[in-house]
Amino acid sequence: MDPIFELAITLPPPGSRDRLRALHGQLRAAILDGRLKPDLRLPATRALADALGVSRNTVVAAYDLLLSEGYLVARPGSGTYVADVLPQAPPPKEARSDAEPDGRLNQMARASRSPFRFTPPEEGGFDFRTGYPDAALIPFAIWMRLSARALRASSKRAAVYAPPEGQPELRDAIAKHVSFTRAVACGADDVVVTAGAQQAFGLLARILVTPGRTVVAMEEPNYVPMRLSFEASGAIIRTVPVDEEGMIVEQLPGDARIICVTPSHQYPLGVVMSPRRRAALLDFAQANNAVIVEDDYDGEFRFGGRPHAALQTLDRAESVFYVGTFSKSLFPSLRLGFVVTPPWAKRALVRAKQTKDWCAPTMTQDTLAAFIAEGHLARHMRKMRKVYGERRAALLHAIAQHAGDLLQPIEGDSGLHLSAHLVPSIDALLVSRQADERGHRIQALNRLGTTTSELNGFLFGFGLMDVRGIERGVETLTQLLRAAAPAKQAASR
Amino acid sequence: MDPIFELAITLPPPGSRDRLRALHGQLRAAILDGRLKPDLRLPATRALADALGVSRNTVVAAYDLLLSEGYLVARPGSGTYVADVLPQAPPPKEARSDAEPDGRLNQMARASRSPFRFTPPEEGGFDFRTGYPDAALIPFAIWMRLSARALRASSKRAAVYAPPEGQPELRDAIAKHVSFTRAVACGADDVVVTAGAQQAFGLLARILVTPGRTVVAMEEPNYVPMRLSFEASGAIIRTVPVDEEGMIVEQLPGDARIICVTPSHQYPLGVVMSPRRRAALLDFAQANNAVIVEDDYDGEFRFGGRPHAALQTLDRAESVFYVGTFSKSLFPSLRLGFVVTPPWAKRALVRAKQTKDWCAPTMTQDTLAAFIAEGHLARHMRKMRKVYGERRAALLHAIAQHAGDLLQPIEGDSGLHLSAHLVPSIDALLVSRQADERGHRIQALNRLGTTTSELNGFLFGFGLMDVRGIERGVETLTQLLRAAAPAKQAASR
Repeated sequence: MDPIFELAITLPPPGSRDRLRALHGQLRAAILDGRLKPDLRLPATRALADALGVSRNTVVAAYDLLLSEGYLVARPGSGTYVADVLPQAPPPKEARSDAEPDGRLNQMARASRSPFRFTPPEEGGFDFRTGYPDAALIPFAIWMRLSARALRASSKRAAVYAPPEGQPELRDAIAKHVSFTRAVACGADDVVVTAGAQQAFGLLARILVTPGRTVVAMEEPNYVPMRLSFEASGAIIRTVPVDEEGMIVEQLPGDARIICVTPSHQYPLGVVMSPRRRAALLDFAQANNAVIVEDDYDGEFRFGGRPHAALQTLDRAESVFYVGTFSKSLFPSLRLGFVVTPPWAKRALVRAKQTKDWCAPTMTQDTLAAFIAEGHLARHMRKMRKVYGERRAALLHAIAQHAGDLLQPIEGDSGLHLSAHLVPSIDALLVSRQADERGHRIQALNRLGTTTSELNGFLFGFGLMDVRGIERGVETLTQLLRAAAPAKQAASR
Repeated sequence: MDPIFELAITLPPPGSRDRLRALHGQLRAAILDGRLKPDLRLPATRALADALGVSRNTVVAAYDLLLSEGYLVARPGSGTYVADVLPQAPPPKEARSDAEPDGRLNQMARASRSPFRFTPPEEGGFDFRTGYPDAALIPFAIWMRLSARALRASSKRAAVYAPPEGQPELRDAIAKHVSFTRAVACGADDVVVTAGAQQAFGLLARILVTPGRTVVAMEEPNYVPMRLSFEASGAIIRTVPVDEEGMIVEQLPGDARIICVTPSHQYPLGVVMSPRRRAALLDFAQANNAVIVEDDYDGEFRFGGRPHAALQTLDRAESVFYVGTFSKSLFPSLRLGFVVTPPWAKRALVRAKQTKDWCAPTMTQDTLAAFIAEGHLARHMRKMRKVYGERRAALLHAIAQHAGDLLQPIEGDSGLHLSAHLVPSIDALLVSRQADERGHRIQALNRLGTTTSELNGFLFGFGLMDVRGIERGVETLTQLLRAAAPAKQAASR
């Protein structure tokens, strides 16, 4: 009898996806410890499958793995044998050091904090986290159809390092899309596709920042991951306060050479930069040979009023880099964004993209290109504008109804979140932590990308809950606020 | 009659995908120039479709685009109207500067050369370019099925910023895959998913290099994009020559703190690092508190002999970063690679990945995880090892048969390309340019990542041609070589 049938092979119950792994591991162990000797001929896959009560496919897959690893060899016309020269098994490692900072890391890396983690709420908890669109409403059937088409097409050209600036069809679609939706004046040649807005910041930092010398002005408060990207490049960060008209351009340091702004929907406050500030900012850039990084992360979602022109649209000095993303209009896990670049920076930007990671995955690019070109993105955004508009109205209504004496929403007419100031007698940070402990999620405005200003309030994202969830969420939050209020105020209600 | 029916709308012939674009553009122009007045009610989509002889879908899509751009507004229960407040049209830009270096770029960006471009050969030309697998043999049907499954699953969680280190299932699959195929000792926790090997180099440079201080040793010749990645981080690059045993470790500069090597299959020469050099390199790293970046870009394709253990496998000082990629085992446009990291660098590496671009696209990650876990990658690689092995043998045979007096193949037993020295009397660089002009593609070894050594030869990639193509390619190349040979030698054949 074949020795393999004598092995004590124990497999998980039928239907488990671990059967292959178990079979493979046990055969490998038997080869390594000599129970299956070199040059032993293995039984036919069907015979072993019958003996073990597994599907033949599982045995074929296990043999394939072992063949590819070198534990088995196939002899054409003869069968499958245990290899006589086995691959070297990994020797055991010495006890590993724990993850303490190591002198081999550079200074910045030694100071690295843990990455941001985003924990969803517990069952029944409210979820006002910002930056998330409602993925449940994405037309996934269409996406899948286009994705399959892109895959079929690319099977002929998958072995290609695509253009680092992005697929021509996608750049064309993006150029038309932003020309239409944001009046950004550009053609396909001005577009560089990136791995989300986050990579766009890193690429711009790479080509614009001279470490230890270049002064980058940021709004205060600001979007922390954007600031980290410029900090990591060695830039000197200076913050400029924001009022109801956006960044107070008059307070820009004269030596600022890069100015990062969110004019459509200031992050996190949500205010819109006023026309006179826009003009002043462009004048500053032109006068100082500075550049502007315009982060238009969710400005496509407007709920009323006349849209403000993008800074890029108004620019006359080729000083604006317009950064867009599909993380909000579609979904973040797509990891696609773009820069509309002035021509003088194009070559360096594309070269930087190539040096960083060659290019974005082409099949995803091709799928998105078709999705835009066939009008699905425009249709989806129209639908979502309505959905988010209703949620925003419900949020404002619920705040007014339940917490009008505590929360003061900040004006603005676009984006996927709304911020609100909290009365000073209650600590928003404390309440957000209490909410967190109870399985809810809401972010406090306090200390968010600030170094000097004092903020007390919350960010209300409305991508993750429907109207009813928002109403209940505000009710629940209000209860937490009233419970946290000082006794006098609690008594006065 | 509705004024819209009076517009001179001219559309491309039926079947053209430009009909939507044309209809959209002409309606938009009519709105902008006042032919369609604010508050005008548009006809029903079916009526306009009938009038224009286009499908109703095309009209619906054009309306959707115009709605999303703000040129039209929908009034529930009433219909679609021209908006009374039109979006601002982009004003014409001033004449643009050409793409000359600009003082707003940093010094490195000003010196940027154009990105690498990869031009395919002309019809009938040979194609010995390196780094490309044969995509025609990828099991795309399986990939598509798994991709559709991943898409369906992710429709529930697409609105998520996934873990920056990569999806847990993919890290687990990668850990098992490299444990099996390369005896790399690791678990899922040691794996960080990257956008190809190229991003891995950039991330490692980011956390390890102190600009202007850290000395990075590279093989000479080397893989230029890898070198550029470290150069861009401000590292001081020193090169160390390669002989038939790989990098001459004895010549490592004492102050090298990062050593980049391709021990399985030296790029571009193709030699394998000998066991004694491997041991010496690990000793050097341990003694000098240096790290090793082990670029194992195609070491999974071995064609004979006992596999050499990866440096990572032999490492006892947690000094090795093992970099792998799926660009060769699957296809480059996937843009997925990974680092197996020592624990002391994990947090900084993950944080750097998050700061660069948050995470890799999750659907691609999920598809690849399933592809590996279900054994398809192992099976594919087994198939491709056979295919590439045959091509490699055919290449060696053809060289010996046609050009044995001119070309001297460099020993090695793995990888997707083979290099060969050319007799000094013929200039390989010149011949590669002549070949290029005739529509062929082959890269010369000359000046490839070298600063001091003199090389004269070619790289023969065998991912892009089958056995017959390789045979014909060598024949054609040999003709070019003989034509380029000095008269004496040409006469002597």
